[in-house]
Amino acid sequence: MISTDTATTEGHQALALLEHTRSLVDPQLRAAVESLPGSIRRVAMYHFGWEHADGTPTGGQAGKAIRPGLVLAAARAVGGDAEQAVRAAVAVELVHNFSLLHDDVIDEDRTRRHRPTAWTVFGVPAAVIAGDAMLALAHRLLAEDIRPASARASARLANCVIELCAGQQADCSFEERGPDEVSLDECLAMATAKTGALLGCACALGALYAGVDERAVGAMDGFGREAGLAFQLIDDLIGIWGDPVQTGKPVGADLAAHKKSLPVVAALTSLTPAAAELAALYRGSMRTPGEVDRAADAVDRAGGRDWAQVSAADRMARAIHHLSRAVPDLGAAGDLLALAEFVTRRTH
Amino acid sequence: MISTDTATTEGHQALALLEHTRSLVDPQLRAAVESLPGSIRRVAMYHFGWEHADGTPTGGQAGKAIRPGLVLAAARAVGGDAEQAVRAAVAVELVHNFSLLHDDVIDEDRTRRHRPTAWTVFGVPAAVIAGDAMLALAHRLLAEDIRPASARASARLANCVIELCAGQQADCSFEERGPDEVSLDECLAMATAKTGALLGCACALGALYAGVDERAVGAMDGFGREAGLAFQLIDDLIGIWGDPVQTGKPVGADLAAHKKSLPVVAALTSLTPAAAELAALYRGSMRTPGEVDRAADAVDRAGGRDWAQVSAADRMARAIHHLSRAVPDLGAAGDLLALAEFVTRRTH
Repeated sequence: MISTDTATTEGHQALALLEHTRSLVDPQLRAAVESLPGSIRRVAMYHFGWEHADGTPTGGQAGKAIRPGLVLAAARAVGGDAEQAVRAAVAVELVHNFSLLHDDVIDEDRTRRHRPTAWTVFGVPAAVIAGDAMLALAHRLLAEDIRPASARASARLANCVIELCAGQQADCSFEERGPDEVSLDECLAMATAKTGALLGCACALGALYAGVDERAVGAMDGFGREAGLAFQLIDDLIGIWGDPVQTGKPVGADLAAHKKSLPVVAALTSLTPAAAELAALYRGSMRTPGEVDRAADAVDRAGGRDWAQVSAADRMARAIHHLSRAVPDLGAAGDLLALAEFVTRRTH
Repeated sequence: MISTDTATTEGHQALALLEHTRSLVDPQLRAAVESLPGSIRRVAMYHFGWEHADGTPTGGQAGKAIRPGLVLAAARAVGGDAEQAVRAAVAVELVHNFSLLHDDVIDEDRTRRHRPTAWTVFGVPAAVIAGDAMLALAHRLLAEDIRPASARASARLANCVIELCAGQQADCSFEERGPDEVSLDECLAMATAKTGALLGCACALGALYAGVDERAVGAMDGFGREAGLAFQLIDDLIGIWGDPVQTGKPVGADLAAHKKSLPVVAALTSLTPAAAELAALYRGSMRTPGEVDRAADAVDRAGGRDWAQVSAADRMARAIHHLSRAVPDLGAAGDLLALAEFVTRRTH
């Protein structure tokens, strides 16, 4: 565990890094999105938070730029020039947002970044089409890039998209299954595909654009994947017990939605009396705050909370082990580590 | 117009060519689809017609392979080796099928190639996800290809996907508009994006893989686009008056569905008394065969039928003009011309 002082310093470092990332990436990202044909551009501009539904500017900015930040920090960590990797960062952010657009349609989520989701504003067809165009745009940017890494980056990005698709498909299938029909291994595989793959790809593309060998690129992918899994575990804990750092999801949100998150599945598969209690609650409607509280308590007593906390720490340790294979002197990877600490909410 | 004997010869030539295309393309296409993760592979295998919904083999084959046929014939027409362009043909066929999967979801079409569409069998989420994965797979195949043309091919394919998306978005917006609110220019632009772009891209990729210069690649794109528009015009005529050659759509199908196809929009915008009559029918339900017959008759009297036939011939002439810029001796482009004649149903 890092001390509070270090945590605050690293938190400031991460925020400064993300701001710098946005200043490098946003102009190219925005130019790319603005190159889309009219009706599609409008949906995309809304989704990124740059325009209101009526097309007027919001004055706001796109998301936190975690993934572009990872691309640039990974490039720098292996001795490359971050500015050379901006195009890869734009491609990764486009893929991230393609998947958000389609996931919101598929999961019927109505809110994203405190705004109505694109499909609720423009309809399902327009949201599906805008997502498709953004995925194609990401590949166009890499295909038009004359840097030697671009073809390998495009292949990695395409493989990552296929993995994201498999993760989303698994997530859908979990929804249809009973509370004792999803194994922890399946759940971890789903989280690796849905969250770890793109964070791994972001780090790998940064390394690729810095011109390092395939072994170091693979190690960077491993770093991002494991950090992504740590992030998912922490995010799942927040989905049950709320965010200790900043206000985000309401406490118990994932339980009320019957979400089979990692701590929940760890609890359900624990063969404890609390597991049976939790399964019974998951089979019911869980509409009252009392039931949600009892479910959270059952996850805790079944060991799901401890397991998730220990697993998150373990995944971060694995992440750093991977990183040390790509960057023998971890001092050079300060930005990357600050970002990883930031996304796993251990700094603020 | 070509004589019946020539037509039959060219028809045989086209069918033999498509069979040969399938023998070259299907093994690689199938291997690519089989490389997808399990749950996605199943939807894709069903969509291509290789498996039943329960995963048992159908013994059948994927579609007619028109687009892969164009890729290979275009490569040969400019002096290249068709076998070198097989990967590009596979990528084009994957993109075609990605767009079919998503269009069926968006248009809520329940039948394709005489079978229930994938979304009706596996659900909307699974069909959207399988389409996404197929688009990514197409780009992965090109990114992993070491041939020098692959990056330019990937950029062209991505641009084509964005154009397909714009065409599909325009098609959706037409559905929501009244019968006199769509101009013929808008309708032609939509058909160019939705049908012409991918046929143009197929021909361009064949030329790219044969190593010719950008001017010839652009001319090949122009050939495919114009032939695609001719195909759409003929297909729209068939959607109203039925197929004179082989049984396909039932007579009047597009009218009963209130489709704003090219001959219909040409008729609606003709400022004739028949145009007003047709607009009134389009504003109503058009549920009886009598009404559908009257609408078909109104399209004819308003000049929509003649316009579509003349335009199709004109587009084929423009297509051949483009082709002659890429292939000065049209004798070398016999396969390509046979395919173009075949898709515009002028041969059988």
